[in-house]
Amino acid sequence: MSLSVNHLLGIRGLQRQDIELIFQTADQFKEVLQRPIKKVPSLRDTTIVNLFFENSTRTRISFELAEKRLGADVVNFSASGSSVSKGETLIDTVNNILSMKVDMVVMRHSASGAPHFLSRHIDVPIVNAGDGINEHPTQALLDAFSIRERLGSVAGKKIAICGDIMHSRVALSNIYCLKQLGAEVTVVGPPTLIPKHMEAALGVNVSYDIRETLQWCDVANVLRIQLERQNTPLFSSLREYSLAYGVNRKLLDSLQKEIVVMHPGPINRGVELDSDVADSGHSIILNQVENGVAVRMAVLYLLSGKKPGKVVE
Amino acid sequence: MSLSVNHLLGIRGLQRQDIELIFQTADQFKEVLQRPIKKVPSLRDTTIVNLFFENSTRTRISFELAEKRLGADVVNFSASGSSVSKGETLIDTVNNILSMKVDMVVMRHSASGAPHFLSRHIDVPIVNAGDGINEHPTQALLDAFSIRERLGSVAGKKIAICGDIMHSRVALSNIYCLKQLGAEVTVVGPPTLIPKHMEAALGVNVSYDIRETLQWCDVANVLRIQLERQNTPLFSSLREYSLAYGVNRKLLDSLQKEIVVMHPGPINRGVELDSDVADSGHSIILNQVENGVAVRMAVLYLLSGKKPGKVVE
Amino acid sequence: MSLSVNHLLGIRGLQRQDIELIFQTADQFKEVLQRPIKKVPSLRDTTIVNLFFENSTRTRISFELAEKRLGADVVNFSASGSSVSKGETLIDTVNNILSMKVDMVVMRHSASGAPHFLSRHIDVPIVNAGDGINEHPTQALLDAFSIRERLGSVAGKKIAICGDIMHSRVALSNIYCLKQLGAEVTVVGPPTLIPKHMEAALGVNVSYDIRETLQWCDVANVLRIQLERQNTPLFSSLREYSLAYGVNRKLLDSLQKEIVVMHPGPINRGVELDSDVADSGHSIILNQVENGVAVRMAVLYLLSGKKPGKVVE
Repeated sequence: MSLSVNHLLGIRGLQRQDIELIFQTADQFKEVLQRPIKKVPSLRDTTIVNLFFENSTRTRISFELAEKRLGADVVNFSASGSSVSKGETLIDTVNNILSMKVDMVVMRHSASGAPHFLSRHIDVPIVNAGDGINEHPTQALLDAFSIRERLGSVAGKKIAICGDIMHSRVALSNIYCLKQLGAEVTVVGPPTLIPKHMEAALGVNVSYDIRETLQWCDVANVLRIQLERQNTPLFSSLREYSLAYGVNRKLLDSLQKEIVVMHPGPINRGVELDSDVADSGHSIILNQVENGVAVRMAVLYLLSGKKPGKVVE
Repeated sequence: MSLSVNHLLGIRGLQRQDIELIFQTADQFKEVLQRPIKKVPSLRDTTIVNLFFENSTRTRISFELAEKRLGADVVNFSASGSSVSKGETLIDTVNNILSMKVDMVVMRHSASGAPHFLSRHIDVPIVNAGDGINEHPTQALLDAFSIRERLGSVAGKKIAICGDIMHSRVALSNIYCLKQLGAEVTVVGPPTLIPKHMEAALGVNVSYDIRETLQWCDVANVLRIQLERQNTPLFSSLREYSLAYGVNRKLLDSLQKEIVVMHPGPINRGVELDSDVADSGHSIILNQVENGVAVRMAVLYLLSGKKPGKVVE
Repeated sequence: MSLSVNHLLGIRGLQRQDIELIFQTADQFKEVLQRPIKKVPSLRDTTIVNLFFENSTRTRISFELAEKRLGADVVNFSASGSSVSKGETLIDTVNNILSMKVDMVVMRHSASGAPHFLSRHIDVPIVNAGDGINEHPTQALLDAFSIRERLGSVAGKKIAICGDIMHSRVALSNIYCLKQLGAEVTVVGPPTLIPKHMEAALGVNVSYDIRETLQWCDVANVLRIQLERQNTPLFSSLREYSLAYGVNRKLLDSLQKEIVVMHPGPINRGVELDSDVADSGHSIILNQVENGVAVRMAVLYLLSGKKPGKVVE
């Protein structure tokens, strides 16, 4: 078994069996991470470069841990302090790094489509770690993996994605992934933050009523309000947003059922999600983070072209 | 033999035998550092994350070298370029990193008590690499270790701590450590930079006369004037401070004895310490730096829960 | 065979046989880099610190890859976020790092002569990764290595160095290296960017006519216009510079011969070099980058004092 793609540029383009192969491989790595010794030498003698043209904490560290636990050599690159500030073009920066014979590239960039552009010019595997407002595929994979872990499967489940759908690469990748796996998806948020024609284009339900949607769903994935990515104000204040769409204990207690709560982090506590929910037994937020390392190990491993039978030696 | 604590949050809380165990372990690691091959695999398969929410050169590099020489995998995190600037709370940042299954945390933070707060929420060992104006325990340990190395022991020795006592976590940790080991301690500096009631609270002597104190002591630990941490000016100029409290050759030559001079670095040359003293045979400043790696190796090793008998394999 | 120097501070001071030894060693490492497994354990148990007091992408990453492929442990230091901003002197910073027992230092600094100054105070090998407007020796070595690779040898070849000669450490190191290897060198650029008395001082030809020089040469090494290093404007616009001295396809097509084109990067595309030349078969720019890793592995290896017979184990 192997992936049908040579890069992980987005969830769009993945087959359902690709996602299932990633999950089965991640299952094995997750077992490794429960051991006292959490390393496997699957990617020993492999050099991976993390090209982060945009700031990140958790995603960069999660990839770095995944790489180091596979035994890879890791070189970090961040845009600040680089030739990027000297006006070098993206392709020059990357070509230079690839001429140094790295074996794989993990890349985050503020421009949508940047990794797709590169994949047409270079021949080592590229993993998209977030491109503009387009996709963030490993986040969607770890989210779906975490749902599968908690609920047994994703197929047939009702998933709500809540908040700023318009500007969120996490939302878009999640929709592709969940639909591919057979889930039913509703996006919910203020009308200004949900693109028009979304139902027809992506096959999801659209709602502007958070309570009604939570009553409907099995899982609510509450997105971060991306203050840094919005050009137009949508509410007069964060407080107003929080009152209308914030997920808190009172709201959850008013439902006639229990739902699972997710968040890709970092949380704006008290804005889109209250602490009494984020830190409760309903929340699988820290499981998402833990699973992120296993899922990224699986993606790196499968793209490296190593045979799956050698995952754990 | 093992430590009586699970974290190294401060010197306060350590038993005398804890400090002695750290020193005996550091003795072994210091021997390792004299060899051509300076690595031991004691922490192989251990992942350590260095969480630096405050800038640092020497402390971060010293820990990183200690970790790598123990064979650990190291992930560096610094606040700039992180989710911290996105408003993530400290506990969220750390919980996320811990969910990724790291084995130990080394942490520096501008808030006093930050590592203590965390230690109540997470169950891997935490090493405080400096918290606000509270403690900097590994600095105090390497200082005392260096005194012991030069003078044979710390007990019974007369130690002067000179300069800005008020804002110095190095001073506070040193006082706890030296007193615990049986030294006599005098703090000396301008009245505005020494907290009131210090004698009663901490059992140290207080002096405002640098010459008299140097005449009394065996060792002078000259602190850095922490310009970046002072809110109120104390002298009209650094020159004025230097004239009143700076340690220079002329002052040392006027004593009827030889004393050992220390400094935690980085030195403001010509302010609190002159180059003709810093670079002289009286100075053990570079020994302090060298011992820092061995002492930090010992702390990491002992907190990891490995058996001391396995230090050097 | 071993180098006649203990540090690589500049090309000035190297013997011809030093350069040839570096090239022969780099040949072996280049072979290693073509293999699936690109690592050799020659510098295992060696700790190298990269001290970058000036920003760099490609040079820092190239050295880091070279170090990791030799099996060394690597600690990165960059000036921002360091004690340098606290006013620590260069020698204090470096002494501190060396007291931690690192085995080799790679250093970039904005002050010409900074690594030479250090080499008189410390006894581990120093590699100059660029000092002010003085030298950038590994760049010159990889440039000459790339010419030798493409043309069989450097001796007797006609090399043009084009652009801002005045402010370029790359130009100066290239001149020393190419002359030492027996090449004929012409520098070409606007009169304001070429130092007076250069012919007599360095034994090179000086030209202000780019077309005539390209017609003469076998190889043109086109330098980056160092906008960030110039204090006085020389042309009213970059467009004006580009029209007078830019290397483009039309200019190359007008020659009665084919020449090899080089650039140390990062390229200002459309200024000193057009994309249709940079990305053409005339260009060996990416070969330069690739060779950089092999040449730096050779330099680090030879300075480490290991026996050449052990390069590839």
